[in-house]
Amino acid sequence: MPIPAPLTGVVPPVCTPLTPDHEVDVPSLIRLVDHLVEGGVHGLFVLGSTSEAAFLTDADRRLVVETVAGHIGGQLPVLAGVIDMTTPRVLAHVAAVCAAGADAVVATAPFYTRTHPAEVARHYRLLAARSPVPVFAYDIPVAVHTKLGADLVLELASDGVLAGLKDSSGDLGAFRSVVTGARAHPEITGFSLLTGSELIVDSALALGADGVVPGLGNVDPAGYVRLDRLCREGDWARARAEQERLCALFGMVGVGDRGRMGAGSSALGAFKAALYLRGVIACAATADPQVPLSEGEVERVGKYLAAAGLL
Amino acid sequence: MPIPAPLTGVVPPVCTPLTPDHEVDVPSLIRLVDHLVEGGVHGLFVLGSTSEAAFLTDADRRLVVETVAGHIGGQLPVLAGVIDMTTPRVLAHVAAVCAAGADAVVATAPFYTRTHPAEVARHYRLLAARSPVPVFAYDIPVAVHTKLGADLVLELASDGVLAGLKDSSGDLGAFRSVVTGARAHPEITGFSLLTGSELIVDSALALGADGVVPGLGNVDPAGYVRLDRLCREGDWARARAEQERLCALFGMVGVGDRGRMGAGSSALGAFKAALYLRGVIACAATADPQVPLSEGEVERVGKYLAAAGLL
Amino acid sequence: MPIPAPLTGVVPPVCTPLTPDHEVDVPSLIRLVDHLVEGGVHGLFVLGSTSEAAFLTDADRRLVVETVAGHIGGQLPVLAGVIDMTTPRVLAHVAAVCAAGADAVVATAPFYTRTHPAEVARHYRLLAARSPVPVFAYDIPVAVHTKLGADLVLELASDGVLAGLKDSSGDLGAFRSVVTGARAHPEITGFSLLTGSELIVDSALALGADGVVPGLGNVDPAGYVRLDRLCREGDWARARAEQERLCALFGMVGVGDRGRMGAGSSALGAFKAALYLRGVIACAATADPQVPLSEGEVERVGKYLAAAGLL
Amino acid sequence: MPIPAPLTGVVPPVCTPLTPDHEVDVPSLIRLVDHLVEGGVHGLFVLGSTSEAAFLTDADRRLVVETVAGHIGGQLPVLAGVIDMTTPRVLAHVAAVCAAGADAVVATAPFYTRTHPAEVARHYRLLAARSPVPVFAYDIPVAVHTKLGADLVLELASDGVLAGLKDSSGDLGAFRSVVTGARAHPEITGFSLLTGSELIVDSALALGADGVVPGLGNVDPAGYVRLDRLCREGDWARARAEQERLCALFGMVGVGDRGRMGAGSSALGAFKAALYLRGVIACAATADPQVPLSEGEVERVGKYLAAAGLL
Repeated sequence: MPIPAPLTGVVPPVCTPLTPDHEVDVPSLIRLVDHLVEGGVHGLFVLGSTSEAAFLTDADRRLVVETVAGHIGGQLPVLAGVIDMTTPRVLAHVAAVCAAGADAVVATAPFYTRTHPAEVARHYRLLAARSPVPVFAYDIPVAVHTKLGADLVLELASDGVLAGLKDSSGDLGAFRSVVTGARAHPEITGFSLLTGSELIVDSALALGADGVVPGLGNVDPAGYVRLDRLCREGDWARARAEQERLCALFGMVGVGDRGRMGAGSSALGAFKAALYLRGVIACAATADPQVPLSEGEVERVGKYLAAAGLL
Repeated sequence: MPIPAPLTGVVPPVCTPLTPDHEVDVPSLIRLVDHLVEGGVHGLFVLGSTSEAAFLTDADRRLVVETVAGHIGGQLPVLAGVIDMTTPRVLAHVAAVCAAGADAVVATAPFYTRTHPAEVARHYRLLAARSPVPVFAYDIPVAVHTKLGADLVLELASDGVLAGLKDSSGDLGAFRSVVTGARAHPEITGFSLLTGSELIVDSALALGADGVVPGLGNVDPAGYVRLDRLCREGDWARARAEQERLCALFGMVGVGDRGRMGAGSSALGAFKAALYLRGVIACAATADPQVPLSEGEVERVGKYLAAAGLL
Repeated sequence: MPIPAPLTGVVPPVCTPLTPDHEVDVPSLIRLVDHLVEGGVHGLFVLGSTSEAAFLTDADRRLVVETVAGHIGGQLPVLAGVIDMTTPRVLAHVAAVCAAGADAVVATAPFYTRTHPAEVARHYRLLAARSPVPVFAYDIPVAVHTKLGADLVLELASDGVLAGLKDSSGDLGAFRSVVTGARAHPEITGFSLLTGSELIVDSALALGADGVVPGLGNVDPAGYVRLDRLCREGDWARARAEQERLCALFGMVGVGDRGRMGAGSSALGAFKAALYLRGVIACAATADPQVPLSEGEVERVGKYLAAAGLL
Repeated sequence: MPIPAPLTGVVPPVCTPLTPDHEVDVPSLIRLVDHLVEGGVHGLFVLGSTSEAAFLTDADRRLVVETVAGHIGGQLPVLAGVIDMTTPRVLAHVAAVCAAGADAVVATAPFYTRTHPAEVARHYRLLAARSPVPVFAYDIPVAVHTKLGADLVLELASDGVLAGLKDSSGDLGAFRSVVTGARAHPEITGFSLLTGSELIVDSALALGADGVVPGLGNVDPAGYVRLDRLCREGDWARARAEQERLCALFGMVGVGDRGRMGAGSSALGAFKAALYLRGVIACAATADPQVPLSEGEVERVGKYLAAAGLL
């Protein structure tokens, strides 16, 4: 299906359930998609960072897109991450996810290499020229170690290169520069401004974001859908209360012992443990070389769920 | 062929010549291999950073290893980079390059993800458990944004997980900690200590490195082979003179206008321009989204070659 | 005067006007204070980053505090930055600014040194134990290269070590973790939560910040006071319009040619040029080694002022 | 006394002994200077990073320079660090240390502020114009978060702005670019090239460094003096053995539990504990907010001393 322009609402980055043997768990993935659809989400983003795309082989990635796009059957737009180091490798993923049914692709700046802003612009121009579907920029400095400047994003939006921005920089001021900057360019129309900052969705929507891509939305999609609706209705007080409930729930990302594992293992482990405890997926395994949560840590995830009324 | 333990001498990271259409230029690649062999090198490292591995598709990568391993026919050891974000994706590359004829694999720490030292260790242990050939660690913080600690490398060497280290950190003091640390562990035998710092090869060999992986060795393999031999003979004064000639030649990496391109485009563009000017490869193109050198910049590369007696 | 607990409203970081010879320009500083008071601000923060505290000698710093505290005469609370590398040096500044009339001090984490979180906590505990006035933490990772964690801030607030937080991290999600976290600790009362992010003041106040420390507030104090009032009245639509006007005005920080100067020279040069053009200060000079704006760049500052209705 | 041009040999960064109350311990400082002179060092560098200059108040700093310069009485050159954030503050330190008897000053690039290379150059030009003694550049990216480029250093050396470079970047390849670059500029004469990398002194001297500024030289000055002499004699084998003995001794910097303290607390705590155990200083205290070594950690320092034949 064509991607709405702009894309609005809640578009969770879909976790990738794994079997104990670390294969993609297709039945669990389908249940997760159903859980999100029942929660009322407005689109699905597969193969993002929360999806452990960095850990999935090409075969795994293809299977994920085929499974989700096949199951959703055009009911909701499906965006697919094409996370890789440089233009030629990203283009290979573009071809693969489009063949598997993606409606749009989401691409970061190059990483591993040392890249000049002019090269980042060139990267997106080459992707857009060769992609059969719209290209979204994925701004995630914690992973790629460069930040997409507002001027760069606006130039690429103005030239029709980019269809949208998924901002996971955590820098709301910079995001606002894009949001307000876009309004000053009449030729920028239908550009989708999505925030990945799940703790400040009310703030982002209040200042003009179109939608939100919350990792925690896997665990509580209905909560984010409520939050989105309250914001659109201008009911800021109740929106804030809902957001604060979700902020408290988000505390689960810190359950993992940081002397034993990285921030990623802790956060992704918590999301998957929560989905397991809520009966959505069959196994909470995360991909190698991440360190699994201990039993006690999984119990603490359960307490966060209980406190949020989700168990 | 089995990798020597330790691997010694000059093991250049082989550039990947491209056609004007950005396909792997197989005849040029074969000529480059011949040029290196004639220069007297002791091994070949394909799919490293200087090989633009980050820019090569899986098909390109396979073609490179098949071409080089096929052409070299066991005459020299062929190490292959398996540069990717995490364990499962790296393992897919391990399988591919081994099928294509690689004698060893060279793997970085995970990147894009935020990784704990315990996860880095786990990464290498999983790779070693499943790799049919020896695994070398590739320490390149400028690309992966973490540094491999000396303690970690020694622990993995001691346990037989790693067969060697390719140090591209630029931190000779830290490298020396591994070199001298390895001597204190009698169970560490045959561990290959390779430096990627082409400007201080004499220093690295003097303090106990086994070999060197110089990007500039593409341009002047005979120079690095001479330098290696002089060091092994203990002729430090002449070694230093040769090294300084090579340092002057290395100045070519700065020809690119840094207002227009990144450091990578400039350096890789210069190496390829030099190979083109020396008649080794047919085309100096670098992969997307890198910015090509201008005509004037290529001319400046020629001046570096002339000054070093290579034109 | 005792600092309100919490401190609320607009507390601009007061620029430090300099003479052409780079002495503190006392008459201009007094006019600037009057300009801010007439704008309706609720407190003054001297010797912050926007005040060029990093460039002021100890004698300059003392003169600034004496001038402002003497002129304001208890009419408004005066907070003073005590920006230096480590505890003993910061304590010397604490003594100096308190003797000069400061009502509270604002201290960063240690910098230049490599500091463990336990050492950051120890730093603040030692400061609080020896400071005659309340201590605010100043979270500014772009300058000190560490981020104050929410847990650390809450622990220090809970123990009565800190009286408030000035957040210049740009990370609103992390700031919210402190804001909502503080509510969960009944023993934390009167803790001042101030944001330094001048582009998202409406967002910060909406989620519970007590006040704002906007560098741009030097140029348009009345604008930030209006914005603060609209937020407190819950008039979010008009607040957003006012904030967006201020965001457009903030564009002036980019007038300086970044091939010729750093981001700081451009931003501080623009603020001072604006104050000069508005007739508040006598000279737009910034401290060494900053590069001054060109005439054309100053003209562009004037255009920002005109567009915002300030000329 | 005038600084030799170039300054050669061993110039340790002199630790600053403190009393249990964290005052400068003048008698211990004098004993430490005597210990260094007896060890045969060729100059003294006070108020460097290893001297805990970042932790010393202005009064402490003055006392240190007066004590050391007064005691040494022109017998050896005394260089003094002038570590502070920006030009005006550094110039105040220049005046103070010169009044106290320093023969040269050692200045870092600006820090805390975001500084453009043009501003770094301007900083050094302003310092040199107003300093009564020669100015050395101090390249220490781990502390100031920018690296001095070889081109910048050579430009400033060529213009007579800088008298020397103290390289604590750990990047020997970049240091060599300055060393060999300086030779290509006939107008650069008497420029002092000093390395602060205590683990690779033999390497640095072999490639042309003039001298070395080893923090560990406080603990074993005679060792570094022997190492320097062996290198100058071209006895590389024995130099390497001496260097390796010192590398093993340097292991003491890791005794501190990194879950409890930063790398600085561990390293400086170890140096001071070693000086205490060797009977040179009366108390091993380090400045606030550093965390002291435990008794067990001090014992481990003793084992390093014993293994190196220093107890």
